[in-house]
Amino acid sequence: MKANKFLVLGCMLMAMFAENDVMAQKPKVLPDHSVQFSIRAPQANRVQIDLGKQYDLTKGENGVWTCTTEPQSEGFHYYFLIVDGVKTPDPASEPFYGCSSMASGIEIPYPEGDNRFYQQNVARGTVAQKRYFSTTENGWRRMFVYLPPQYFTSNESYPVLYLMHGGGEDETGWVNQGRTDIILDNLIAQGKAKPMIIAMLDGNTRDFQSELLKDCIPFVEKNFRVKANAENRGLAGLSMGGIQTLNTIVPNPELFGYVGIFSSGWFASANPMGASMGGDTEKMYKMLADRKDFYNKQFKELFLTMGGETDIAYNNCKVMRGRFDQIGIKYSYFETPGGHTWPVWRESLYQFAQKLFK
Amino acid sequence: MKANKFLVLGCMLMAMFAENDVMAQKPKVLPDHSVQFSIRAPQANRVQIDLGKQYDLTKGENGVWTCTTEPQSEGFHYYFLIVDGVKTPDPASEPFYGCSSMASGIEIPYPEGDNRFYQQNVARGTVAQKRYFSTTENGWRRMFVYLPPQYFTSNESYPVLYLMHGGGEDETGWVNQGRTDIILDNLIAQGKAKPMIIAMLDGNTRDFQSELLKDCIPFVEKNFRVKANAENRGLAGLSMGGIQTLNTIVPNPELFGYVGIFSSGWFASANPMGASMGGDTEKMYKMLADRKDFYNKQFKELFLTMGGETDIAYNNCKVMRGRFDQIGIKYSYFETPGGHTWPVWRESLYQFAQKLFK
Repeated sequence: MKANKFLVLGCMLMAMFAENDVMAQKPKVLPDHSVQFSIRAPQANRVQIDLGKQYDLTKGENGVWTCTTEPQSEGFHYYFLIVDGVKTPDPASEPFYGCSSMASGIEIPYPEGDNRFYQQNVARGTVAQKRYFSTTENGWRRMFVYLPPQYFTSNESYPVLYLMHGGGEDETGWVNQGRTDIILDNLIAQGKAKPMIIAMLDGNTRDFQSELLKDCIPFVEKNFRVKANAENRGLAGLSMGGIQTLNTIVPNPELFGYVGIFSSGWFASANPMGASMGGDTEKMYKMLADRKDFYNKQFKELFLTMGGETDIAYNNCKVMRGRFDQIGIKYSYFETPGGHTWPVWRESLYQFAQKLFK
Repeated sequence: MKANKFLVLGCMLMAMFAENDVMAQKPKVLPDHSVQFSIRAPQANRVQIDLGKQYDLTKGENGVWTCTTEPQSEGFHYYFLIVDGVKTPDPASEPFYGCSSMASGIEIPYPEGDNRFYQQNVARGTVAQKRYFSTTENGWRRMFVYLPPQYFTSNESYPVLYLMHGGGEDETGWVNQGRTDIILDNLIAQGKAKPMIIAMLDGNTRDFQSELLKDCIPFVEKNFRVKANAENRGLAGLSMGGIQTLNTIVPNPELFGYVGIFSSGWFASANPMGASMGGDTEKMYKMLADRKDFYNKQFKELFLTMGGETDIAYNNCKVMRGRFDQIGIKYSYFETPGGHTWPVWRESLYQFAQKLFK
């Protein structure tokens, strides 16, 4: 089609000859951790960046709009470009799926010497994209499976952590925002975590319990060398993924030896979320109370993390812990500053992975 | 940070309660293969879609802009959203890296019964993301490696095709736009292609020959069960990747038994591309002429494909074939309509994979 020819010719020429014409330059992180944005938008009336809060850019010469934000905290932050009220990803940046949309992300450096979330010169694992047919969803879906460095050079079987993203995200979240493979490669190289498989699933399903138990777990156990028993099987999730985890492990405790609940907790007050996520919270507390010794024995770790008091899940989790204390359910609780954000979830995985399968 | 709390609270609420507020709805492909776009942009003055040509959307009630395109040809097409002159990806769509930018893509159905590029109920391979340290680029880079279904259930070694994207693209191109894993899963299941490994590399490097020969090939051969000799090693690429392929196989014919050049050819007239891509074309033709029998014997397949006369590389390839004919270099030539587009490149891989390693 003639039309296509012009687009791709334009693309080829743009790619090969002139990088100057791109709409946006990659955002620049300054030494004080503020971020400089630069978008060429001569015809726009208002250009903003949404980076936790909205910043208005100022139009300069040649129609280039710029702004410099306040200093940002370390780690990953979602952001969007907003041109005359339309929120989109930044064309100059790597995309991340979050907030139920394609979004952009900016990475702020961690303090000098803290390389836990950076690639280092260690043995590298593999992130395997696997497509599978879900009987629950009656369609093809995708998961990402982290395989430890040892996987390809041994004949051993490995324990598995099933790991869930949050609301508005998908199975790419723990890979891209979370940097799961980097975190585990580094921990395994240091001998701080056992070599393990991590299955990062798509939690956008009408019936998570069915998707996990009928489709995902059997698929992983069939396609990888897996130690398929409770003491070698963990389930963890952040935010919405934490609620999905709670709603699964309480009715099915015999399946899981390790549980992680990051920035989450059952909703403290009645709300549509409780019902829509398939969990009747009081029923769950009753199940826990009726067999508390069994749950305490079964879960070698019940690890709750929270991004401090600014984390929107803080109060729900506090109330839930109160109920656990009343009932006598054992757990560990880990707070790290940062709110309801990916740096908190990376930290959560970093801590949790060191407790697994030992 | 308080600011972050509002963004993620907003994200969580948006994700859980109200899908109605999203900026854009996924584009809708109509029965005649035209595409309907719908973007909510009450404050914008002009909203367009770039889908090979630019379409102006019309503002309707509630600030929702819409348009319906002409019928589109089958397969994958890049597209962009343009709001008041700023070209961005569509937040409602899966992203694809192309045209040196994050872009969006729309998939138009193939004719009824043509399932070659769709997931089918066959044994599924794996796409493995691997990070490696490149000595050429002095930094960490990424490749995607397709492993056939048999890989995890056998102890056999496999032949490897090294596969390159085009200008303005990256190592995700053949995975996402190209659907390499789906094409091979289907061909292998039908017995039309030999089980093989396909390493999809990042061609954005100052010195492709070095990156491939010093970094990528040794990395693949070290980390996977590979048959490491010329008759089990192929190199192919589209557009810029085709030129990179030509510039590598001519100086190094002893390394490769199979060569694929899709929608490409050395530039017929002198231009900065020739020099900037590291190839002196006349020198290449001389090397071919000086040892034509050796090249003809070494390359079991030299497979040139083209998207018809509307393909921007058509003339370059025609001139190159003329030179090959003059010299006496053997090749096969395959034309398929579609121009310089991903449907042509999927078709090219579909054809080429059936010729490999037999």
